[in-house]
Amino acid sequence: MAAITIRDVLPRDGLQSERLIDPIRRAELAVALADAGVAHVEASSFVSPAAVPSMADGRTVISALPLRDDVTWWALVPNPKGAELALAAGVTHLTLTISASDRYSRKNVGRSTIEAIEQLAAVGSIVGTRAAIDIVISCAFGSPFDDVDNPEVTRFLVDQALDAIPLARITLADTTGTATPRRISEVITNLPGAAHRDLGLHLHDTRGTALVNALAGIEIGITRFDTSTGGLGGSPFAPGAGGNLATEDLVLMLHDLGHDTGIDLDAILAISRGLTTLVGHGVPSRVSSAGPLPSFGS
Amino acid sequence: MAAITIRDVLPRDGLQSERLIDPIRRAELAVALADAGVAHVEASSFVSPAAVPSMADGRTVISALPLRDDVTWWALVPNPKGAELALAAGVTHLTLTISASDRYSRKNVGRSTIEAIEQLAAVGSIVGTRAAIDIVISCAFGSPFDDVDNPEVTRFLVDQALDAIPLARITLADTTGTATPRRISEVITNLPGAAHRDLGLHLHDTRGTALVNALAGIEIGITRFDTSTGGLGGSPFAPGAGGNLATEDLVLMLHDLGHDTGIDLDAILAISRGLTTLVGHGVPSRVSSAGPLPSFGS
Repeated sequence: MAAITIRDVLPRDGLQSERLIDPIRRAELAVALADAGVAHVEASSFVSPAAVPSMADGRTVISALPLRDDVTWWALVPNPKGAELALAAGVTHLTLTISASDRYSRKNVGRSTIEAIEQLAAVGSIVGTRAAIDIVISCAFGSPFDDVDNPEVTRFLVDQALDAIPLARITLADTTGTATPRRISEVITNLPGAAHRDLGLHLHDTRGTALVNALAGIEIGITRFDTSTGGLGGSPFAPGAGGNLATEDLVLMLHDLGHDTGIDLDAILAISRGLTTLVGHGVPSRVSSAGPLPSFGS
Repeated sequence: MAAITIRDVLPRDGLQSERLIDPIRRAELAVALADAGVAHVEASSFVSPAAVPSMADGRTVISALPLRDDVTWWALVPNPKGAELALAAGVTHLTLTISASDRYSRKNVGRSTIEAIEQLAAVGSIVGTRAAIDIVISCAFGSPFDDVDNPEVTRFLVDQALDAIPLARITLADTTGTATPRRISEVITNLPGAAHRDLGLHLHDTRGTALVNALAGIEIGITRFDTSTGGLGGSPFAPGAGGNLATEDLVLMLHDLGHDTGIDLDAILAISRGLTTLVGHGVPSRVSSAGPLPSFGS
């Protein structure tokens, strides 16, 4: 069974729709995830605090993270200014988001997809080889605005993104939970070869399909996933976005299937249980409530 | 793509942990499901109202159901007395439950699995050829009491059940949500040939795995599923049982994959939205909240 790489996006995507949490506490969460064996953590973003108040003080979060051999810290940047701030803070791995849905892009970041591609190229020029870049394609499997209705729309945008930043890796995001196993397969098999170098999936559970979509991805060779402990998350700008695929839900299934993740499920469950107090409400993950599986083997 | 048969268990399993609902209203729900294209509906049970108060007046429910060519009405019976009551009420399709977990059996129905097999044989003698029988094997993929830890336990019980009632069909139930795609495959491929005549799956979403387990079943040839509109349900006797796989969640995925179900998803969603008022709380199904998918085709 293939080893699966998980990037936990709890401190960023997971908390961006919550009330503002102290940046030191967010850094501690990121470190706790690393201690649980998560090798990639998206720790914060460098966005305008006026636009996303919960992500204020990204620099403080990043400064509080230790340099460790066993974990890669990521930060999301929306534009050249964010990239400059992130690089100045010492971030070495950046996520950039562009949307396959032009209408979602206009609502989410106030610019068309074409303008977003131009921004992407500008960020790429600023970053050069100073940081690795992962381009996250939002609404890759459909859009609440009905303007991503076939795999060619996503392919077109991936081509444009790799033209703008040829060394980037690609992550496909099901921002509003419209993916299905069929759609996962159709979109991924239609991508250009360069997109497959280190292709990731970022799934939301709006319709309860995140886990089945993850398995569909694994069955066609995907080995890299974004998840969020507790299943927290979702864009504050996407109607009915729904939480991220929960780290514990994916890890439970992967371990049962025999995939290595390097992650200690019990440690993730302990972090997940602590989130209820931190965010002031329950978390969507059902494994968080139900706990691990009794053993069962042939 | 194979046609998939769905039995909606909302009026029985779905409502058995809720407050008592008027039997005529329960019959109306069953008819509404049939009108939505559901070809099999588990309409009630004939259990002691002292043990399961919400299932009182099963006879009234059954009497209120019209004879229709397009739907088969099922009722659950726990013992010979229940079978006699159901037959007297005119029920032609009976579900009987026995548990692969001896400890669950003792807690749930107050008898050992061995005693339950003896009861099964007694019910089979009473019923003869007057009704079709579906034997539902609970805890088929594991038990909260850790006494179903490999596929042989389930195989042993299925063998016993088919010895007791040779003409019965078999449904495997994941009563407390411990199934995974691997466990589904291991249990099903280990069953005797006779169990495969019309093998069904009855899945619960305790750990968010019901949909991925359904797809795993389909991939190895299962074409019959129990679901509950809204995702309501779960045994009042099973710790943390969690709701049934929601009819709308399975139908949404099946239609996207190209499987015919005969079911009108919009009609199911309308029934599901009405359940919140009926039961006095929200329903677990996420499709019920998020609605159908935007179209997406290659």
